Amino acid sequence: MRNIHIDGGRLWDTLMEMAKIGATPKGGCRRLALTDLDKQGRDLFVSWCQSAGCTVRVDSIGNMFARRPGKDNTLAPITTGSHLDTQPSGGKFDGVLGVLAGLEVIRTLNDHKVETEAPVEVCVWTNEEGTRFAPSMMGSGVFAGAFDIDEIKAAEDTEGATLGAELERIGYAGDEPAGGHEMGAYFELHIEQGPILEAEEKTIGVVGAANGQGWYDITVTGQDSHAGPTPMPARKDALVTASKIVQEINRIGHDHPPFGAATVGFMQVSPNSRNVIPGKVIFSVDMRHPEAEALAHMEQELRTYCEDLSQQTDMGVEVSKIWALEPTQFDKDCVDAVREGATLCDYDQMEIVSGAGHDAIYVAQVAPTAMIFVPCENGISHAEIEYASKEHCAAGCDVLLHAILNQAGTAG
Amino acid sequence: MRNIHIDGGRLWDTLMEMAKIGATPKGGCRRLALTDLDKQGRDLFVSWCQSAGCTVRVDSIGNMFARRPGKDNTLAPITTGSHLDTQPSGGKFDGVLGVLAGLEVIRTLNDHKVETEAPVEVCVWTNEEGTRFAPSMMGSGVFAGAFDIDEIKAAEDTEGATLGAELERIGYAGDEPAGGHEMGAYFELHIEQGPILEAEEKTIGVVGAANGQGWYDITVTGQDSHAGPTPMPARKDALVTASKIVQEINRIGHDHPPFGAATVGFMQVSPNSRNVIPGKVIFSVDMRHPEAEALAHMEQELRTYCEDLSQQTDMGVEVSKIWALEPTQFDKDCVDAVREGATLCDYDQMEIVSGAGHDAIYVAQVAPTAMIFVPCENGISHAEIEYASKEHCAAGCDVLLHAILNQAGTAG
Repeated sequence: MRNIHIDGGRLWDTLMEMAKIGATPKGGCRRLALTDLDKQGRDLFVSWCQSAGCTVRVDSIGNMFARRPGKDNTLAPITTGSHLDTQPSGGKFDGVLGVLAGLEVIRTLNDHKVETEAPVEVCVWTNEEGTRFAPSMMGSGVFAGAFDIDEIKAAEDTEGATLGAELERIGYAGDEPAGGHEMGAYFELHIEQGPILEAEEKTIGVVGAANGQGWYDITVTGQDSHAGPTPMPARKDALVTASKIVQEINRIGHDHPPFGAATVGFMQVSPNSRNVIPGKVIFSVDMRHPEAEALAHMEQELRTYCEDLSQQTDMGVEVSKIWALEPTQFDKDCVDAVREGATLCDYDQMEIVSGAGHDAIYVAQVAPTAMIFVPCENGISHAEIEYASKEHCAAGCDVLLHAILNQAGTAG
Repeated sequence: MRNIHIDGGRLWDTLMEMAKIGATPKGGCRRLALTDLDKQGRDLFVSWCQSAGCTVRVDSIGNMFARRPGKDNTLAPITTGSHLDTQPSGGKFDGVLGVLAGLEVIRTLNDHKVETEAPVEVCVWTNEEGTRFAPSMMGSGVFAGAFDIDEIKAAEDTEGATLGAELERIGYAGDEPAGGHEMGAYFELHIEQGPILEAEEKTIGVVGAANGQGWYDITVTGQDSHAGPTPMPARKDALVTASKIVQEINRIGHDHPPFGAATVGFMQVSPNSRNVIPGKVIFSVDMRHPEAEALAHMEQELRTYCEDLSQQTDMGVEVSKIWALEPTQFDKDCVDAVREGATLCDYDQMEIVSGAGHDAIYVAQVAPTAMIFVPCENGISHAEIEYASKEHCAAGCDVLLHAILNQAGTAG
């Protein structure tokens, strides 16, 4: 089977067609989980899969599985996939590439009339981004048993709509139980979302591990007061204190190279009025590292700094850990299948660590898993200008095809 | 007239009655300019003034003037007042005390059947706080000719409602022209909104001057990108840069004691998502100082720092000055009338600078003006816990009575 290849032009056209749903003025996508636009994207995917001869099943958290039968349908399927939802001002590739590359693999197998031993599946995980409903990676997390489905269905967006009700409303609350769906292997193709492959001039990233993560909420409580007549020494300005913590978080990230990362992405100032000293500031912290010990050390540095600052300033500084993910080592056989696929197709490759969270990280808890990265321009993602070239998308999809063939086996 | 005094109990009851309109759970008030609650507050004030025998006129920007005739009604009135609108989570005293103390002066003159030479007026200025419609001190600013009335009427709140339309809607777009309303003198009683009188154990602040102010908007433009896989050295994190500027603004404030102040009260982070590096941060700066030269120096320090930081970080840092107010010296005769009133009533007094903006600062541009401050608990205002004691409110009102009598003259 070394001579078959996917159709890079068809993959690109399919990506651009999907990108019309929720297209933004600057060339990105806004297709938030379980909105009408998410439904439109899902409907389009289902129609494409059915045209390719697949049956599509939906589980109770809205994950979708499009199946191409194998020769031996008692074998666990070899599965690939990712997500169709985007960030509020997201791009056309994050998640979508992994889903539509899976569809392109099916179309290629059809074109070449390849019968695999095991069935091949393409799946779409619900709400990977976690921006409308927190936390992220809900569909794969429920699938892997990391989240309780009833708690996840009760999650609310800022308007008070629950995830469960929105799933019903758009018609994607399926009747299959979420989880217990066996997989022989799981592969996920994704843009790198970082600048390393581009800087190293490599086409394929063979992803051997993924960063652990810690998510925190920090609340600084000072005292709101009038910005004019309150003398500087008498102030308890929560934003001045929060700003110091932002600086310290940035320092912690810089002091754990090359994969350590620490970010404040969200901040809410109260009462947020021009002539009032802020009395309260709430902000998020996102810390990542591929080694559990280093990640724990980063957290401890943050906590110690906040405790000291609270004493120095006589303000409340409350650090609350809201979510954590252990570092992941992917499956050796699956990683080998990716490496061999890249070698077979003659693409420049390198080993890489995933800095971002991906559905594959939860799936790895219940099935042998690996990931494939392709470069994205300037390492930028979660932004409208996010871009991956047609050639890189095609290369990643080609490696995905061969990794799937490696694991599914061919009947010929 | 040295033996007449205001009724502190009646003043307090009147304050507490007004505070029911827009009362908040923690004992504060939320009565934003030109809302239904503002209308209720205005209606109540009008009914009280009419019961006290005053006629009430309204000008085209919604400023209200309640007039008690004098012996010689060709004389320009001696006017006092302040505002009834509050901050979003404001207190019961800021502004309201100045208005209702004026009403209490009228009631006291009635009780004692005092006929003044000049008429006495109590006025309410429209939208002093400037939080629903920016900028602040709109009514007095239009009155003094500092603002163009058509531009002010076109100001929009965050819902897109214009000030002009809201003024019509609540029935307070009056038929008197705004401005050109002569005053023999203007006095404004206000809580200090700072901790100085309390710390010095003085009951009355004789306000000789007011801080100049500069308001700025700063926009930091970096690049939004994924918080996981973007290596720390490759980031253009707008919030990290904004946080440095917040620290510098705080330093500038601290380095201009005792009256210099510098505050970031408002901040908006984009896209404000937990796992996205912020690409853009917009925030406000409020700088104040009683000396024009020092204020200009503070501004220059800010601009230089932002220019340097923009170069160092290769991010956009745009500083835009949106409003300015020169430092004010109040009228010597009016200030003397306040000082003599405090001496006559035997209250501990001190000279003080106003750190906050007040309607009196605009009125001072067109009429002889002075202010009277009373202490507020812990110097806190613009907050629900803002508090001034019954005794201090009464003392301030008593000094106001005698300052007005000093300027209006008595026929007896």
